[in-house]
Amino acid sequence: MVSTPELKKYVNRKILLKLNNNRTVIGELRGYDIFLNVVIENGIEVSKDKNENALGAQSVIRGNSIVSIEALEPIV
Amino acid sequence: MVSTPELKKYVNRKILLKLNNNRTVIGELRGYDIFLNVVIENGIEVSKDKNENALGAQSVIRGNSIVSIEALEPIV
Amino acid sequence: MVSTPELKKYVNRKILLKLNNNRTVIGELRGYDIFLNVVIENGIEVSKDKNENALGAQSVIRGNSIVSIEALEPIV
Amino acid sequence: MVSTPELKKYVNRKILLKLNNNRTVIGELRGYDIFLNVVIENGIEVSKDKNENALGAQSVIRGNSIVSIEALEPIV
Amino acid sequence: MVSTPELKKYVNRKILLKLNNNRTVIGELRGYDIFLNVVIENGIEVSKDKNENALGAQSVIRGNSIVSIEALEPIV
Amino acid sequence: MVSTPELKKYVNRKILLKLNNNRTVIGELRGYDIFLNVVIENGIEVSKDKNENALGAQSVIRGNSIVSIEALEPIV
Amino acid sequence: MVSTPELKKYVNRKILLKLNNNRTVIGELRGYDIFLNVVIENGIEVSKDKNENALGAQSVIRGNSIVSIEALEPIV
Repeated sequence: MVSTPELKKYVNRKILLKLNNNRTVIGELRGYDIFLNVVIENGIEVSKDKNENALGAQSVIRGNSIVSIEALEPIV
Repeated sequence: MVSTPELKKYVNRKILLKLNNNRTVIGELRGYDIFLNVVIENGIEVSKDKNENALGAQSVIRGNSIVSIEALEPIV
Repeated sequence: MVSTPELKKYVNRKILLKLNNNRTVIGELRGYDIFLNVVIENGIEVSKDKNENALGAQSVIRGNSIVSIEALEPIV
Repeated sequence: MVSTPELKKYVNRKILLKLNNNRTVIGELRGYDIFLNVVIENGIEVSKDKNENALGAQSVIRGNSIVSIEALEPIV
Repeated sequence: MVSTPELKKYVNRKILLKLNNNRTVIGELRGYDIFLNVVIENGIEVSKDKNENALGAQSVIRGNSIVSIEALEPIV
Repeated sequence: MVSTPELKKYVNRKILLKLNNNRTVIGELRGYDIFLNVVIENGIEVSKDKNENALGAQSVIRGNSIVSIEALEPIV
Repeated sequence: MVSTPELKKYVNRKILLKLNNNRTVIGELRGYDIFLNVVIENGIEVSKDKNENALGAQSVIRGNSIVSIEALEPIV
């Protein structure tokens, strides 16, 4: 059965988000919806020159701005 | 239960909005709708060189222009 | 009750619109629809170097081009 | 009653269209649809250095490309 | 009666298409659909320095890429 | 009868696709859907300086990225 | 019968994805949905100067960011 993209397995795991305007954000996935809007905690923004900038307590990232979501932990 | 992105917990709290054209706005969230259009009060726009420019009494920011919404206060 | 973004309170008040291509327009809100298309009167376009250019008698601004709508008068 | 953006009053009047890619077109509005696609006649394109270039007999301008529609005649 | 944009009158006539990325195409309109996707024959692409480059036997141009459609023949 | 854009006549024929980011792809059309997503075989990408780069065995090109589809063989 | 673009035949095969912002990603297709969101494993990002950068264990790439999907293995 061809699995549809399932973010359920990524919840509470560390993910790396690549956003439209060349922004990269790393954090723990807490939730998502069908538009691929995602909720992350302990978020860090990694700039091009690898500087890290902590984000707020919790962040909602809009699906429309997301290019890719990488699982930084094994997905079983 | 995987929580869908819920802005309800952010209402009346201080949030930081990153917008499409590299604009950053900070303010108190007063309301939102399913398109992630948001209403903020006491809004401030923070330019790249950290200058702060107060916005009107109340502002509606269109969901389509929003990249991320960070809670600047703990979310319980 | 979390209020959804309500432009009704802004009608006949002075508003400031920030548009996608760094354009700024000030005018009195006369009407709007669910796509956030808005009708303004006595519109003025404010260029980056603060020059003011009067718009036509009445203008329709398309919601898709709007980034934010600021109320320039108190909203009660 | 909050009026929704109504182009009916603009029909057969002179309007100024600002388009996405900094193009400006002036002409008489002959028709429109719910997507704000508009039909104009006697259209002129005004370039940034104010040169005027006549358009075809009649033109359809796609709503998606329109930023604003200004009435160049009083709207009663 | 306010006419909605009607391409029927343009069929088999010469039209000029302005596309999003500053491309200009001239050809005879053979068909269209509700998304303003259009079919043209004997198409020519006119570059900025007025060079003309013939297109294939027949071409489909996607509505999403079209800014304006000008009739190059009188529309009765 | 005004024909709607019909790709059926283009199937198994050589076509030239112009894509949003100034990319040009030539190949044989094998299939398409209502979003104008297309399947091509024996695809070649032609760069601006006319270099040719063969694509994979088969490729799906997303409709949203397509500006125009030219038939490089007569369409009867 | 004109086949609609069918990614089923690409599953568990090596594919090359060209993304909107000139990014190129190679990996094994594990799943997809009707929006052409795709799940890949053993993903590698290939930069313009041909440097290879391994992606996370598994990645979801959003359909909206995808320009083309090339099968790097024969499709039967």
